[in-house]
Amino acid sequence: MSILAVGSIAFDSIATPSGRVENILGGSATYFSLAASYFTQVRVVAVVGEDFAAEHESVLKKRGIDTRGIERAKGKTFRWGGQYLDNLNEAKTDFTELNVFERFQPRIPPEYADTEFLFLGNIHPDLQTAVRLEMDKVRLTGGDTMNFWIQGTRPQLVETLKLINVLLINDGEAKMLANERGLPRAAKKVLAMGPQALVIKHGEYGATIFFREGAFGIGSHPFRAPALPIEEVKDPTGAGDSFAGGFMGYIASQPEINREVLKRALFYGGVMGSFAVERFGTERLQSLTRDEIEGRFQVFRELTHLG
Amino acid sequence: MSILAVGSIAFDSIATPSGRVENILGGSATYFSLAASYFTQVRVVAVVGEDFAAEHESVLKKRGIDTRGIERAKGKTFRWGGQYLDNLNEAKTDFTELNVFERFQPRIPPEYADTEFLFLGNIHPDLQTAVRLEMDKVRLTGGDTMNFWIQGTRPQLVETLKLINVLLINDGEAKMLANERGLPRAAKKVLAMGPQALVIKHGEYGATIFFREGAFGIGSHPFRAPALPIEEVKDPTGAGDSFAGGFMGYIASQPEINREVLKRALFYGGVMGSFAVERFGTERLQSLTRDEIEGRFQVFRELTHLG
Repeated sequence: MSILAVGSIAFDSIATPSGRVENILGGSATYFSLAASYFTQVRVVAVVGEDFAAEHESVLKKRGIDTRGIERAKGKTFRWGGQYLDNLNEAKTDFTELNVFERFQPRIPPEYADTEFLFLGNIHPDLQTAVRLEMDKVRLTGGDTMNFWIQGTRPQLVETLKLINVLLINDGEAKMLANERGLPRAAKKVLAMGPQALVIKHGEYGATIFFREGAFGIGSHPFRAPALPIEEVKDPTGAGDSFAGGFMGYIASQPEINREVLKRALFYGGVMGSFAVERFGTERLQSLTRDEIEGRFQVFRELTHLG
Repeated sequence: MSILAVGSIAFDSIATPSGRVENILGGSATYFSLAASYFTQVRVVAVVGEDFAAEHESVLKKRGIDTRGIERAKGKTFRWGGQYLDNLNEAKTDFTELNVFERFQPRIPPEYADTEFLFLGNIHPDLQTAVRLEMDKVRLTGGDTMNFWIQGTRPQLVETLKLINVLLINDGEAKMLANERGLPRAAKKVLAMGPQALVIKHGEYGATIFFREGAFGIGSHPFRAPALPIEEVKDPTGAGDSFAGGFMGYIASQPEINREVLKRALFYGGVMGSFAVERFGTERLQSLTRDEIEGRFQVFRELTHLG
């Protein structure tokens, strides 16, 4: 099944304890698409500027990603600069130049109309809603958001959440969205806002999926996937988007969507996130093999399985 | 097999978003002993003041804990006051009155000489070393420490670590002890200081056990146990000590010590920690049943097990 990712393409300048890079290909749609491309056919809707060259597009094309939805606008591509010098778990933003991304209006190519899986990256909730409403063949929608939208556009976000089946956010975002200190209560409140499942990403500690009672199967027990303790985290940028790409890509590759599939998807999300951080930018995600992915899936499995 | 816990007995005054209590029975040895008492015979060495009454001792005695090692000194029992009003994951200390604990010199009753499992709670490393050297029947020693000793008595702590088989500390302590930002590297450095295994406690995210190459079995893969997302954390005090009690108590109950036992012990640690936080102080740990413990062990197991 094909999956459509709507989000950002960016050029990132990143400093971590392992080094420093300038203007490398990044953005939520880029990380998501590359990670998902190992599982299923991926389509992208994003906007880039005149500085987005053939070499950048070929990173996606080499992974078989359909780039017809990438719009070229006058001006420069979104640029972000950040550092993780003090804390590998949280980026400190040096600068954000939205550039062409500031006026991003997702346009869905007619060839994408039959897409059955959709991932709404971290953009204005009104744009997320508009895309979802336009795609009437979609069976499952995943979505992301962030503090900026939770605080600044809550009413719009509340509308979007009614259209999202699986929301993927981190601990802080979940607590802010629900205005609750404890995760299980926060999860319950967020699920009452619309999603059938909520994935809360804990960074280096893995992720937990909470289900609305009866959604995707019986009961409402949460499920937790660990994260691998990574020997050297070179660059945490894109870990969450790569997680989402592995998670959604695996789901889109399965004939049926049920709890067991969502649990495995949580593991594959962790696997793709763990690869992403091993090198700067998207480097590691460009040349993985299915064997490497399955091998690490087994390592994750063994990490928490009792004999 | 019996296990000896050396540590503190205290009266705690605690404020959390769920309420406030004053002068309730606490201390690392108390939480540890109660948690371990569901698995094995427990002995305690600690010091209390004249305010430690029969009703307090009976909390331990009711669980079959051998209290002959509790020394009564002139003065008041150790008192601690703290709050978790802003952050359930970290206590803000309001006051610490060491009282009789300030001059604590652990004295091992002769009846304890045959003890095979030892847990050295969070006390001065010189005291930990002295106790360990005195106990010549001990097969496995677990130990705890904290930032205060890591910063203030590092040379002494380095000596103690050579005598500890399994060190149980949290993320921040491990990073401080190793002077490393990343957990896997920190773990490797700590293991090089002596322990055969290192348990790093991640609070609400569970715990990871790292093994020295070849210790307790083949290889050096870490293992991670999740923590249950708890609906309502009433009082986080003692969660780490209860974790240690479940972990060490389970090990002491097994005929053999190998990796599979240590992995299961990590789960039992999480189970006992999760019970502890459900009520203020030691209340929940006073009246559990083995059925409740086994039931929660299964929940923990299912929390991360793929079908």
